[in-house]
Amino acid sequence: MNNVKAIKWENDSLVLLDCTKLPIKEEYIICKNYTDLIDAINCLAVRGAPAIGIAAAYGVVLAAQEAQGKAGSKADHLGYINEAIQELAATRPTAVNLFWALDRIKEVLGKVSGASEEVIRDRLLKEAETMYAEDIACNMKIGENGNEVVPQGASILTHCNAGALATAAYGTALGVVRAAHDAGKDIHVFADETRPLLQGARLTAWEMTQEGIPCTLITDSMAGYVMKLGRVDLVITGADRITLNGDTANKIGTYSLAVLAKEHGIPFYIAAPLSTIDITLKSGEEIEIEERDKREVKCLFGVQTAPEAVNAFNPAFDVTPNEYITGIITEKGILRPPYEVSIGNLFR
Amino acid sequence: MNNVKAIKWENDSLVLLDCTKLPIKEEYIICKNYTDLIDAINCLAVRGAPAIGIAAAYGVVLAAQEAQGKAGSKADHLGYINEAIQELAATRPTAVNLFWALDRIKEVLGKVSGASEEVIRDRLLKEAETMYAEDIACNMKIGENGNEVVPQGASILTHCNAGALATAAYGTALGVVRAAHDAGKDIHVFADETRPLLQGARLTAWEMTQEGIPCTLITDSMAGYVMKLGRVDLVITGADRITLNGDTANKIGTYSLAVLAKEHGIPFYIAAPLSTIDITLKSGEEIEIEERDKREVKCLFGVQTAPEAVNAFNPAFDVTPNEYITGIITEKGILRPPYEVSIGNLFR
Repeated sequence: MNNVKAIKWENDSLVLLDCTKLPIKEEYIICKNYTDLIDAINCLAVRGAPAIGIAAAYGVVLAAQEAQGKAGSKADHLGYINEAIQELAATRPTAVNLFWALDRIKEVLGKVSGASEEVIRDRLLKEAETMYAEDIACNMKIGENGNEVVPQGASILTHCNAGALATAAYGTALGVVRAAHDAGKDIHVFADETRPLLQGARLTAWEMTQEGIPCTLITDSMAGYVMKLGRVDLVITGADRITLNGDTANKIGTYSLAVLAKEHGIPFYIAAPLSTIDITLKSGEEIEIEERDKREVKCLFGVQTAPEAVNAFNPAFDVTPNEYITGIITEKGILRPPYEVSIGNLFR
Repeated sequence: MNNVKAIKWENDSLVLLDCTKLPIKEEYIICKNYTDLIDAINCLAVRGAPAIGIAAAYGVVLAAQEAQGKAGSKADHLGYINEAIQELAATRPTAVNLFWALDRIKEVLGKVSGASEEVIRDRLLKEAETMYAEDIACNMKIGENGNEVVPQGASILTHCNAGALATAAYGTALGVVRAAHDAGKDIHVFADETRPLLQGARLTAWEMTQEGIPCTLITDSMAGYVMKLGRVDLVITGADRITLNGDTANKIGTYSLAVLAKEHGIPFYIAAPLSTIDITLKSGEEIEIEERDKREVKCLFGVQTAPEAVNAFNPAFDVTPNEYITGIITEKGILRPPYEVSIGNLFR
């Protein structure tokens, strides 16, 4: 079941479901230029590591279209596209899928750089569409693999949104939820609201209502209590970046959940495609943590919640050390500790 | 240092700083009748267990004033006051200080019930004022005692608001913060915003800016990460109810913090007056947890944050088991485990 599509290619444009407007309004942003997409990434209209990667691939197609028939020379034409790739790569320092997607597009560009502008554009579009289809197939495989560890009647706690709204469609953590639901397991989801930007309240809760999957919204602070009540059977979140040893960067608050899950003996899973794994990083200590505008903590939907004079801290992510992670659910199966070995084997 | 006064008795009225309007507006509610106070408690204009207790004592004075010269008989007069006591007691099931304060007022009422209506009113007012002054003295003593465990240059994480806005003045957890700050210890406070009602963002952050105490606001989900960064030296929260074995009911999210503090080897303290301890309850399992309106989780300041159709769970409190609590800072010193013994000794 998959009623939610956040990324579409229509009429030579990239059409994005504006995640900042959900769940109140279902509005779409039409990106005709790659800079429209950069704006959409910066304002989080499109978010989630896999979705950003795929959108960025389409963004390079937009740049190729823009450059078509306008550049003075072949070098100018390729220069414009490469400039777009660089600018797109600079939007989010933590999302490894973004670099992965752009590297893949760059490779294609390298191969066809001698061709006509039309051929280049068509070839880049074909690659973006392949990546889009592969992402959905990959997520469905993640769902299938993850479903193996979801008991009948399970209550699954998730954080942020690793759903259809964070990927091409179907989702990673919510892909597992969808697969378990479709398997008739009578599951229930606890959605952390995920302050400061409320991706859980706005996006996960919305996705679950769209799919008719029973879902209970809680504030982030309630997760420990709900676990203590015995109402959580497993925790599944997505990932922004996984290092060679299994340390995982994900939305701020994921680490707290992992500690709480450990204390309550609850399995804690990460669901993510292999493209999220960055084997150039040995451990989470090497992951750069993006800090966002302090006003996100002091405001909510533009409503001020704290005194103007107070300081705030707004790390976008945290790193969950591998010892808290029961398994990493990927399209190639569930990786188990020690992750240096299981991840190492996969990438050898 | 204590620039914040949330409860005042002026012109035969109870004047309350409206906590629901902070930090945007500093507005006062003038309660002329005890039902005005019930409304103020219900809408959380006055909140925090000790503050509610003291306000309720003044509320009985308001009832005595209302009944003055109006009741048909002595029995009617006392009946009106006793009805007010019952209604005030019903406002918050978890706040033991409320019952404690009303029991104390009832005892005074019992002693002077044969006196004139004026004498009754004056005697009740005197008792309420004594309780008010005692609460401040008690908090300053809590501050002094707690200051002993605050290292020079400490960074203290707190949850919700156990400050001047939760007591007559000075505060319990924030009383310790004030005492350490006044002792020149160069301390810093991390304030959890404390969803759903944001008492940390709205009240603690405001109190700290009023006092000039350095304070950094974080979302509740960031506490674990901030601890992992080594930026928290100790956690201090207030309490709504403490049982004989030291189990502590406090604002939802406190339990998660306690688990996180334990995982990071960070001392976790409760700061509360002895009136918060309910020795009739053996353990936290006997504490009734109030569930509040689900809309508090699905909205913020009236702004909808989640789809209308999604379910929500809104426990107002959680219970932190005694094994997570390093010490309970009271006006009689810091209680240490085993709490059955240290609390038992105090109440023997």
